[in-house]
Amino acid sequence: MADWLAALDRRADLRAKAGLTRRLQPRPAADGMTDLAGNDYLGLATHPEVTAAATAALSAYGLGATGSRLVRGSTDAHEALETELAQWLGTDRALVFSSGYLANLGALRALVQPRTLLVSDAHNHASLIDGCRISGAETVVTPHADVDAVAAALAAAPGRPAVVVTESVFSVDGDLAPLTRLHAVARRHGALLLVDDAHALGVTGPAGAGGVAAAELAGEPDVVVTATLSKALGGAGGVVAGPAEFVRHLVETGRTFIFDTALPPAVAAGVHAALRLTRVGDDLRVELADRVALAVGRLRSAGLTVSAPDAAVISVTAPGPDAATAWAADCRDQGVAVGCFRPPSTPDSRSRLRLTVSAGVPRAAFERALEVIVDCAPVSARSEPGLRAPQSRTAVTQ
Amino acid sequence: MADWLAALDRRADLRAKAGLTRRLQPRPAADGMTDLAGNDYLGLATHPEVTAAATAALSAYGLGATGSRLVRGSTDAHEALETELAQWLGTDRALVFSSGYLANLGALRALVQPRTLLVSDAHNHASLIDGCRISGAETVVTPHADVDAVAAALAAAPGRPAVVVTESVFSVDGDLAPLTRLHAVARRHGALLLVDDAHALGVTGPAGAGGVAAAELAGEPDVVVTATLSKALGGAGGVVAGPAEFVRHLVETGRTFIFDTALPPAVAAGVHAALRLTRVGDDLRVELADRVALAVGRLRSAGLTVSAPDAAVISVTAPGPDAATAWAADCRDQGVAVGCFRPPSTPDSRSRLRLTVSAGVPRAAFERALEVIVDCAPVSARSEPGLRAPQSRTAVTQ
Ligand SMILES: Cc1ncc(COP(=O)(O)O)c(C=O)c1O
Ligand SMILES: Cc1ncc(COP(=O)(O)O)c(C=O)c1O
Repeated sequence: MADWLAALDRRADLRAKAGLTRRLQPRPAADGMTDLAGNDYLGLATHPEVTAAATAALSAYGLGATGSRLVRGSTDAHEALETELAQWLGTDRALVFSSGYLANLGALRALVQPRTLLVSDAHNHASLIDGCRISGAETVVTPHADVDAVAAALAAAPGRPAVVVTESVFSVDGDLAPLTRLHAVARRHGALLLVDDAHALGVTGPAGAGGVAAAELAGEPDVVVTATLSKALGGAGGVVAGPAEFVRHLVETGRTFIFDTALPPAVAAGVHAALRLTRVGDDLRVELADRVALAVGRLRSAGLTVSAPDAAVISVTAPGPDAATAWAADCRDQGVAVGCFRPPSTPDSRSRLRLTVSAGVPRAAFERALEVIVDCAPVSARSEPGLRAPQSRTAVTQ
Repeated sequence: MADWLAALDRRADLRAKAGLTRRLQPRPAADGMTDLAGNDYLGLATHPEVTAAATAALSAYGLGATGSRLVRGSTDAHEALETELAQWLGTDRALVFSSGYLANLGALRALVQPRTLLVSDAHNHASLIDGCRISGAETVVTPHADVDAVAAALAAAPGRPAVVVTESVFSVDGDLAPLTRLHAVARRHGALLLVDDAHALGVTGPAGAGGVAAAELAGEPDVVVTATLSKALGGAGGVVAGPAEFVRHLVETGRTFIFDTALPPAVAAGVHAALRLTRVGDDLRVELADRVALAVGRLRSAGLTVSAPDAAVISVTAPGPDAATAWAADCRDQGVAVGCFRPPSTPDSRSRLRLTVSAGVPRAAFERALEVIVDCAPVSARSEPGLRAPQSRTAVTQ
């Protein structure tokens, strides 16, 4: 009976030997770190208007929603947020979930009918992969950003309902999916397009409305947008936005919507305040883009292998998992928090530092952080300046 | 292409004809309703110490956690909550998730190895059912609370790893699973026992530590406890508690843990305050038990068919889905919020009112609410007083 625990220990030992141990490192409220690891792209999580809105809602509604959305959990705060999200995203309606993860599970399952084929990008986020899995539908994983492969997969299933599943800005490497071409291919085959706009929301598109809006696909009847409210919007929760019929279908049948406690009203209210700031935050987005360009230039000039970021996620290749861990730890010792991504959290076998740029970090601290990252880089992470290793495009089994 | 929307509309029409339409009804902050629908069993969601703790954490940490637990999302607030949860629940360790739903998905998947058999109670919550599904393991659904059927399922799979999956207090009918006997059977067969303690936490057990603690199974090496922090604890989030090796395994491999933004620190802090109040809340639990007994007595004396509640969930049979909706609407018109559960949210084909008793509602309002429920009852919901319809035990396909 205690066998299972011994077996788990053996697996932990194997991970440790491979340099793949993960440890929680709780941070205090003000840890003085320069944050290039979080997803608070616009610095809104700590914006006084955001925390004030949440505080007011806390005293008005209490802490939790006390029930699922259909039972007792829907409040005015949820409805107001949904109304403005739909306006912003340019869709008929928007529906708030308790997390982006559950939004993706719910959306994918609701899109699937008997015989549906899902066509999923090899770099998709775990929640999309799990959504495909829980939907029970046949899923073809296509090589990353490969529109021809998507077209071929759709052509091979004539007459079947199909959904093309992609992120807009990919969460690990920060590159943008070819949304316009994906949509054209999907439409040609009568397929739907589901786009997880998590890392684009607030960062790209008109008024920060994300990758789908930037590609002018918002409001198309064959496009469904999902996102988390936890990144540029600084809070927590998820959203599915699309045609009214689809949102109604989710309300009435979506298991991860119906059988889940609603997002706390205070979080909905805080996110709503962040949304208002995001819509008028073009100055923040200009600053963000400037910093991203600065970072890429600085890191490349030091001979590091850096992704070509389309938003605010930058991936820097590390020589291996142990080197990545050590690199990140050295940065942390110098007061800089960076993401350390190792398999299986990477879409291929390469370990990376993952830097997320935020307009909320003081400019000087940001610039200093770049120097720290360069200083701490392992020698083997540097190629001849200007000479960058080609990016591997290994498809992974989802 | 717009076909799919027309198809969704047709399905909505079918649901409407069957009386199964669901509509969001957002509530204002102070709606003056007497709440017998929410899950805030101890009234802690609005307790001043709870909202004060959340407010303080909001200003210290900001709104969102800004990242996943392993990247940037773990804060002192999460760690402190986890430490006290483990103490309270009597387990080695406890791990906080962003929701109970994702906690169940994560726990089940992490418990499954190749060839694992899952034995799942027919009345289990959607998140447990989905957890079984996403784990990919073979799942046998046993009739509700049927220990012999569980034993037979385990006996039919000798030598295979197995997990018995159950709620403690079932969420729709409020009855308690035969935990002691389930554990004995599981242990005899070398199987593990996973218990979702969502509706028992804070309500039953020593210091409100739940059904597993009440059955003296806390800390057993073959028992894993899951729960939501959104019911008696008045907030949001989920927890998985069990042996340290298992929690470590979840931290390092659990997809719904790793790839999900952490619970907002302010919510963790608010829940922690609620937890402290819950541990010393025996007076609230005495009041709660008294109200449950009062409600059952009053409703039965009016000839209604009422479940035998083991905690604070009471199920009252309605003649059908339309009658249930009308009954709940009439109560709402009289200022009383009750849950209205219709298929497929019920474990069988019966529609019900689902009443959740809370110690936080003023006593006089609670007593008045019982009269409202009786007054609004459809004639066909009443049998001869004392003569109750037998409860059906139809197994449902999960
Ligand atoms: C692309 C993408 N989708 C979905 C999610 C899940 O959202 P949430 O954290 O709100 O569950 C994340 C990150 O957390 C993400 O990066
Ligand atoms: C038995 C049970 N398990 C799990 C959940 C899901 O928890 P959460 O709402 O935190 O996702 C619920 C209710 O919401 C529940 O009743």
